[in-house]
Amino acid sequence: MVRFAERMNRLTGSEIRELLKLTAQPDIISFAGGMPAPELFPVEQMKAAAIKVLDENGKAALQYSTTEGFPALREKIVERMAIKNGIKTDIDHVLVTSGSQQGLDFSARVFINKGDVILLESPSYLGAINAFKACEPDFISVPTDNDGMIMEELEKILSTNDRVKMIYVIPDFQNPSGRTWTMERRQKFMELINRFEIPVIEDNPYGELRFEGENMPSLKSMDTKGLVIYLGTFSKILAPGYRLGWVCAESEILEKYNFMKQASDLQASTISQMETNAFLEMNDLDAHVEKIKEVYRKRRTVMLDAMKEYFPEGVTWTIPNGGLFTWVTLPEHINTKEMALQCLEQKVAYVPGGGFYPNGGHENNFRLNYSCMPEDRIVEGIRRLGDVIRKNM
Amino acid sequence: MVRFAERMNRLTGSEIRELLKLTAQPDIISFAGGMPAPELFPVEQMKAAAIKVLDENGKAALQYSTTEGFPALREKIVERMAIKNGIKTDIDHVLVTSGSQQGLDFSARVFINKGDVILLESPSYLGAINAFKACEPDFISVPTDNDGMIMEELEKILSTNDRVKMIYVIPDFQNPSGRTWTMERRQKFMELINRFEIPVIEDNPYGELRFEGENMPSLKSMDTKGLVIYLGTFSKILAPGYRLGWVCAESEILEKYNFMKQASDLQASTISQMETNAFLEMNDLDAHVEKIKEVYRKRRTVMLDAMKEYFPEGVTWTIPNGGLFTWVTLPEHINTKEMALQCLEQKVAYVPGGGFYPNGGHENNFRLNYSCMPEDRIVEGIRRLGDVIRKNM
Repeated sequence: MVRFAERMNRLTGSEIRELLKLTAQPDIISFAGGMPAPELFPVEQMKAAAIKVLDENGKAALQYSTTEGFPALREKIVERMAIKNGIKTDIDHVLVTSGSQQGLDFSARVFINKGDVILLESPSYLGAINAFKACEPDFISVPTDNDGMIMEELEKILSTNDRVKMIYVIPDFQNPSGRTWTMERRQKFMELINRFEIPVIEDNPYGELRFEGENMPSLKSMDTKGLVIYLGTFSKILAPGYRLGWVCAESEILEKYNFMKQASDLQASTISQMETNAFLEMNDLDAHVEKIKEVYRKRRTVMLDAMKEYFPEGVTWTIPNGGLFTWVTLPEHINTKEMALQCLEQKVAYVPGGGFYPNGGHENNFRLNYSCMPEDRIVEGIRRLGDVIRKNM
Repeated sequence: MVRFAERMNRLTGSEIRELLKLTAQPDIISFAGGMPAPELFPVEQMKAAAIKVLDENGKAALQYSTTEGFPALREKIVERMAIKNGIKTDIDHVLVTSGSQQGLDFSARVFINKGDVILLESPSYLGAINAFKACEPDFISVPTDNDGMIMEELEKILSTNDRVKMIYVIPDFQNPSGRTWTMERRQKFMELINRFEIPVIEDNPYGELRFEGENMPSLKSMDTKGLVIYLGTFSKILAPGYRLGWVCAESEILEKYNFMKQASDLQASTISQMETNAFLEMNDLDAHVEKIKEVYRKRRTVMLDAMKEYFPEGVTWTIPNGGLFTWVTLPEHINTKEMALQCLEQKVAYVPGGGFYPNGGHENNFRLNYSCMPEDRIVEGIRRLGDVIRKNM
């Protein structure tokens, strides 16, 4: 009789991915995924990049390459992190991964023994929780407010719990809440981290997608003790189809990630790395990101306005200044998992909030994505959602 | 102070990957890697496939897609396994992975708790041993001879050790030995497996690269109880740069691999899958494989002939009928790890044998790869190797 490893008891399919299957029908208005708008993908430019790579360097592009990643691409990642995130580093401190999801998986594998504690924001990204579960941690969700993680709560936990081995945060346009940490919180956070010397996974897929206001410095840029492991990705600023992300960390830590990369799949795709590198050489990614931001900003505004118009009294939501998501809270008696089925009947979808809390509860929230639907569909979808919510009040 | 997880004590860089860095200089005659010959890559055809995909389906190619993999590609994998490996299955039993290395990593994570036993051939593939180590197993190496794993030894272990949770084998043109299991061994193996009901990882990257003799049926094709997990890859028959492999297993087992895929990196690259699929639609992969085989067969023969000419008495090697490797055994007093440095001085490289034995020892062997060097370089490299060996005798 086949017996599975104990870790598999903790792993089940992610609700998002299961829901995405249901919402793949074209007549559904889906706010469920976290997908970029495909109509903005620079298809022609990527084709030109692919042709250039295969014409000039075809044999190398189809061959194995180094675990750490393609040097020219890592060089560009280093330059971009310097400009966009204030991170001063070099290519020896960058590993290319298969999306930043792989950075999440490696983080748990590098730091977590069974029963160790991972701290994360409440709520936190479902896909990260799912990746971490494979290492059988205990989770402690740290309360948050509109300014980010609440530092008094974090301090209380760090002072009283010596099993904490890792802290996972998304300080910019968080998934699922859409919230961004204030400067004050970031400074206080780094003080605490330096005092307790706990490694921090800073996940920043959305930081470049700011619609208004000032950019915040990354935690990594404020890191004086080499405790922050920074995860970046091309998925939201370019395209997710190549599955390219990166880890930036101090040498002693990154070495462990490199070992994990080698053991788990040898290297990221050579040709994906070379084509992305060629795209960056041939095009202005900043101009492309501006275009994306303009579209998402409008969609965000349309969604917020529609919620104001169609959602009943007693429903609240976050006001994101960037990123892909807003987070809706209903009265406590409403279960958004059950309500999701009623919504699917009305051909509209979201992700129920429960999955974003590793220890359960909070079933009265849901996550809405606004990046992937045209404006008129957003209005219509929110109208339908409003109807279903009203029936459940 | 940052503390790493216990599993990281077991993980260090693979010797092959470290050695490949040293041997990347163009003046080195390297028999160290396991790389396909880049001059045979169908670069122009892959360019045509890339253009087709981006012209006809660009948005989908750059977007997220399902965890299981691109359906049309899985369909072609199913057809290929039916014809080449005698495996009757459907796409619901196939998961696309980031190379078959990822299938190895997932296998350990799905089946192995710390301290569980993995059985493998002696010697066995270094990259698999490295992947498995992250789950902190104990290894037991089962003795082999020219016909494959020795069944009496396997039976002895299975009868007396109840901690065995997984058996890892490469029955066709094994890495590193180049040996292939006979039909009799395969039948006896499946009898034992069915009796003890232990899951088997059948790793088959080289099966299609047979130079002479009859194809052997895969273990998976003889599997009546759903115990064999089959790993395939495009790396050796097409190109490794896309990082595309697959897992084929029964539903209950494959579900666990799908969960691992979702948690660890969501999905294989969408565009890599679609371009590989387009290549398969537009070209005759069989004809391409024939071309590869012809080149490798000649190089194999040149290498074997050169060893006969240049290697001193007392050195033995395997005679591979396919695949990429031959396995050389020196007198026991010679340490091939130390000798590798002398060889690097003579600008010739191999992989020392020690790493292929998870419990150490056997330092008097080394692995030679013949797929990646032109014939004249093979002769010259073997001549140099012979000189160094002679000095050490």
